[in-house]
Amino acid sequence: MNIIIIGFGEMGKNIAQLASKKEQITIVGVVDINPELHGKLIKEFIEVKEEVTIVNEIAALSDVEADVAIITTGSEIENVAETILSAVKRNLNVVTIAEEMAYPWVKNRELSEKIDVISKQNNVSVLGTGINPGFILDTLIIVLSSVCYQVNKVKATRINDLSPFGPTVLNAQGVFRTVEAFHEGVENGEIVGHVGFQQSVALMAEAFGWDIDEVIEEKKPIITNVDRYVKGQLIKKGMVVGCNHSVIAKSKGKILIELEHPQQVQPEAEGIKTKDEIIIEGIPNLHMTIAPEIPGGIGTVAMAVNVLPHVIKAKEGLITMRDLPGLLSIFENMTDQVK
Amino acid sequence: MNIIIIGFGEMGKNIAQLASKKEQITIVGVVDINPELHGKLIKEFIEVKEEVTIVNEIAALSDVEADVAIITTGSEIENVAETILSAVKRNLNVVTIAEEMAYPWVKNRELSEKIDVISKQNNVSVLGTGINPGFILDTLIIVLSSVCYQVNKVKATRINDLSPFGPTVLNAQGVFRTVEAFHEGVENGEIVGHVGFQQSVALMAEAFGWDIDEVIEEKKPIITNVDRYVKGQLIKKGMVVGCNHSVIAKSKGKILIELEHPQQVQPEAEGIKTKDEIIIEGIPNLHMTIAPEIPGGIGTVAMAVNVLPHVIKAKEGLITMRDLPGLLSIFENMTDQVK
Repeated sequence: MNIIIIGFGEMGKNIAQLASKKEQITIVGVVDINPELHGKLIKEFIEVKEEVTIVNEIAALSDVEADVAIITTGSEIENVAETILSAVKRNLNVVTIAEEMAYPWVKNRELSEKIDVISKQNNVSVLGTGINPGFILDTLIIVLSSVCYQVNKVKATRINDLSPFGPTVLNAQGVFRTVEAFHEGVENGEIVGHVGFQQSVALMAEAFGWDIDEVIEEKKPIITNVDRYVKGQLIKKGMVVGCNHSVIAKSKGKILIELEHPQQVQPEAEGIKTKDEIIIEGIPNLHMTIAPEIPGGIGTVAMAVNVLPHVIKAKEGLITMRDLPGLLSIFENMTDQVK
Repeated sequence: MNIIIIGFGEMGKNIAQLASKKEQITIVGVVDINPELHGKLIKEFIEVKEEVTIVNEIAALSDVEADVAIITTGSEIENVAETILSAVKRNLNVVTIAEEMAYPWVKNRELSEKIDVISKQNNVSVLGTGINPGFILDTLIIVLSSVCYQVNKVKATRINDLSPFGPTVLNAQGVFRTVEAFHEGVENGEIVGHVGFQQSVALMAEAFGWDIDEVIEEKKPIITNVDRYVKGQLIKKGMVVGCNHSVIAKSKGKILIELEHPQQVQPEAEGIKTKDEIIIEGIPNLHMTIAPEIPGGIGTVAMAVNVLPHVIKAKEGLITMRDLPGLLSIFENMTDQVK
């Protein structure tokens, strides 16, 4: 399996690193817009088996034969659509970790339909994946529901720790702010919270046959009751250490989905354990916990690589995690397995 | 979707009951060997929309058009193979809850290959499914592994309560015996423990690309330290209240899979909580708990119904849970969903 990686930032590098370790995968091209990277070998940055030089655009790889492009250049459909289309037109299947591509119709139906039509014309599939959206708060819930007679309601919570992240992420969650400044940040769009609730809700609604008519998101400040620290920096008691972003999805006034994703630094300072928790109210009720939570970075990198053989075999067009043929696993279809 | 149910015992009845509630499913035939049932309407036993009369063999349904047969007549491949073949030769897809059919090659390769060939000749699929084997100690672990860079080892435990079960199940787990009589029962085959470890191990080994060369099963008595009760009957301290059945699977001397399934009456008498627990040792480590455990009876019935649309769409031949196209969900493909 020959792959091209588009976007050689933190996530692109980690995906390249993992992909290169798989015998069945060869990296045949890497694209990044950063001029400082152009002409450099990827093995100057990561330990890989391939002698691949970074180029500035996919057009520079016209003589390279590949099966899949992995796109890591943005979160929004509008930012990655052109790149997806350029890959698809070269008959490349596409895997992207752009959050909005986990269920892109909900944000931009027109562009989604365009990607669907053009990928079908070129006999390839396009999949948006990741850990959240893409697995914990949607796909895994759908998989668990397979043991249920009936699902009445889904509640899920993902509690993580922002401590490993840099200032961009911390600022986007309102860390270091006063409560007042947090609310200002939510209003002016500086505090983003989690990108992906709309996609997770739509993915589950489709799987469960639910007609969702109201989706309410809320961003609340997480105010610390004790002094907390992030990379040596003090955040005093009473200040904001993160954002508790949640969503409620209703049908005819009835709540069917509740998702909550409080992201904060040093939750253990107040005895809060990180975890993923899924509650399905139905027949039977199910209560699942993964503790500590599935790490978002590692998980997304793993998922982007693990889906590769499945995306190649999947039906053509713009697809979701629900369309993948066969259950995922880290080696599945990457070794010659004989029953 | 028109279905035929073969085997109208406890599980067959519950499957019929659930299937009948789905708008998209119609029961068009029911077969059972019990002469007392012949000629009776299934609605004399369960609340269903269908006017279906129970017949003695599938041949009696020659004028009935159906898509799938659900077979609930036994646990072993040798016991269900003839029934599967008779359905397949009528161009019916087959779902069976026979434990050994979750990965039948491991028990009887020749018969499995015969089923595979004949189902392909008739353009249909045959799937063995259930909760255990079929989901908790295999499929769910494979799904969770999709977020891993690497899986080094899998450990999983399912702790349940035998209290709801009747004397056949209790006897098969050694309940009421002395420790000595338990060991005798294991030796003479009266104590069966759990049927399905070999299948779960094989399903995971295939998914993870593991070459398992040694599989060791062990059945240990669960001896109660307090008086316990089942349906009013006393089991005195020191007696056996169940069977702790476990399996270890190795490759070149290294343990890769450890599964444990202690089944006992009234575990809470000693403060033991029922649960399903999965530990993946790898990158990252994962620790999942479902508490209380997924109920085996309800879960198996739900799964047998929920897989129906997927089995119809699946590739032809004898397949496993890993081959199902698309993730399962209770309504998936059972409603007209438009993106």
